[in-house]
Amino acid sequence: MPIVNLKVLGTLSDEQKRELTRRFTEDLYEVADKPPEYTYVVIEEIPFSNWGHKGKLFSDM
Amino acid sequence: MPIVNLKVLGTLSDEQKRELTRRFTEDLYEVADKPPEYTYVVIEEIPFSNWGHKGKLFSDM
Amino acid sequence: MPIVNLKVLGTLSDEQKRELTRRFTEDLYEVADKPPEYTYVVIEEIPFSNWGHKGKLFSDM
Amino acid sequence: MPIVNLKVLGTLSDEQKRELTRRFTEDLYEVADKPPEYTYVVIEEIPFSNWGHKGKLFSDM
Amino acid sequence: MPIVNLKVLGTLSDEQKRELTRRFTEDLYEVADKPPEYTYVVIEEIPFSNWGHKGKLFSDM
Amino acid sequence: MPIVNLKVLGTLSDEQKRELTRRFTEDLYEVADKPPEYTYVVIEEIPFSNWGHKGKLFSDM
Repeated sequence: MPIVNLKVLGTLSDEQKRELTRRFTEDLYEVADKPPEYTYVVIEEIPFSNWGHKGKLFSDM
Repeated sequence: MPIVNLKVLGTLSDEQKRELTRRFTEDLYEVADKPPEYTYVVIEEIPFSNWGHKGKLFSDM
Repeated sequence: MPIVNLKVLGTLSDEQKRELTRRFTEDLYEVADKPPEYTYVVIEEIPFSNWGHKGKLFSDM
Repeated sequence: MPIVNLKVLGTLSDEQKRELTRRFTEDLYEVADKPPEYTYVVIEEIPFSNWGHKGKLFSDM
Repeated sequence: MPIVNLKVLGTLSDEQKRELTRRFTEDLYEVADKPPEYTYVVIEEIPFSNWGHKGKLFSDM
Repeated sequence: MPIVNLKVLGTLSDEQKRELTRRFTEDLYEVADKPPEYTYVVIEEIPFSNWGHKGKLFSDM
């Protein structure tokens, strides 16, 4: 029953989302025996102006 | 002091959001005695291309 | 494909968790036609010393 | 290694996001000795129709 | 700047956590060119009595 | 209506949690005019064996 929530800075292509979903699901099956039919992957793409690091927004770097 | 965070695939109508908020808040009051003035419900609508299941994106199914 | 993440202050009894899970799942089916086999409910119980409101921890109130 | 996830109702200006990021990062350094290079701040702006309180959506108040 | 938040039902061994962290980080690098030094993986292990599916708690199944 | 969710590696003392809650709530009031009575701060303390960075668990570093 795994839920993978991925937050990334900026956007991903559909091909990247597809491949990350495939791999994360496979990792959970191979490493922890979690059946793919129970694995959810939710991807959140965060704008540069909404993510800070070292006290600054990425949109200011 | 409950926070309900609902993630759904695709979108909901305003009427569905309104009714889910009303019911979740009522459930928490009736079942666990949580006063409605302390309950927050936050709804996140996730695009089909950002939610994976069984190793595939919903936008590919 | 809904995921309900509930954060509550303090603990809930098993009976309260059972009934909230049953109701949230039913709400999503009745209001938004989400089949119960796709609904996950994850409950997080947060200690009083880890939840703040109005600038104070609940453990200090 | 702190991650601060801020959910706000409605939107913030870039200047508000910038200043909140700066302060949260500084707070974590001053209070808990967390080096700024390890602190992530992620800001999520939630529409009025997706946030409920007291059983009602903010868009209905 | 990716953050991977994994919620699993029950517990994982240290070896499973280690290997999942290694793979998720590698996936993000290979698929989306995210440098490992920016990737955080946070694993949350949820008790059977706090996770519901199909309207029932796993502790009741 | 802000919700601040802070995830930290390891534990914080009660005094640190108290002071971070006070400051985050004040920041939101001063910067974004959010009244303290609407601000929730939820602190999650993550064990070293459940947080990975650069592909490794902190418990292995």
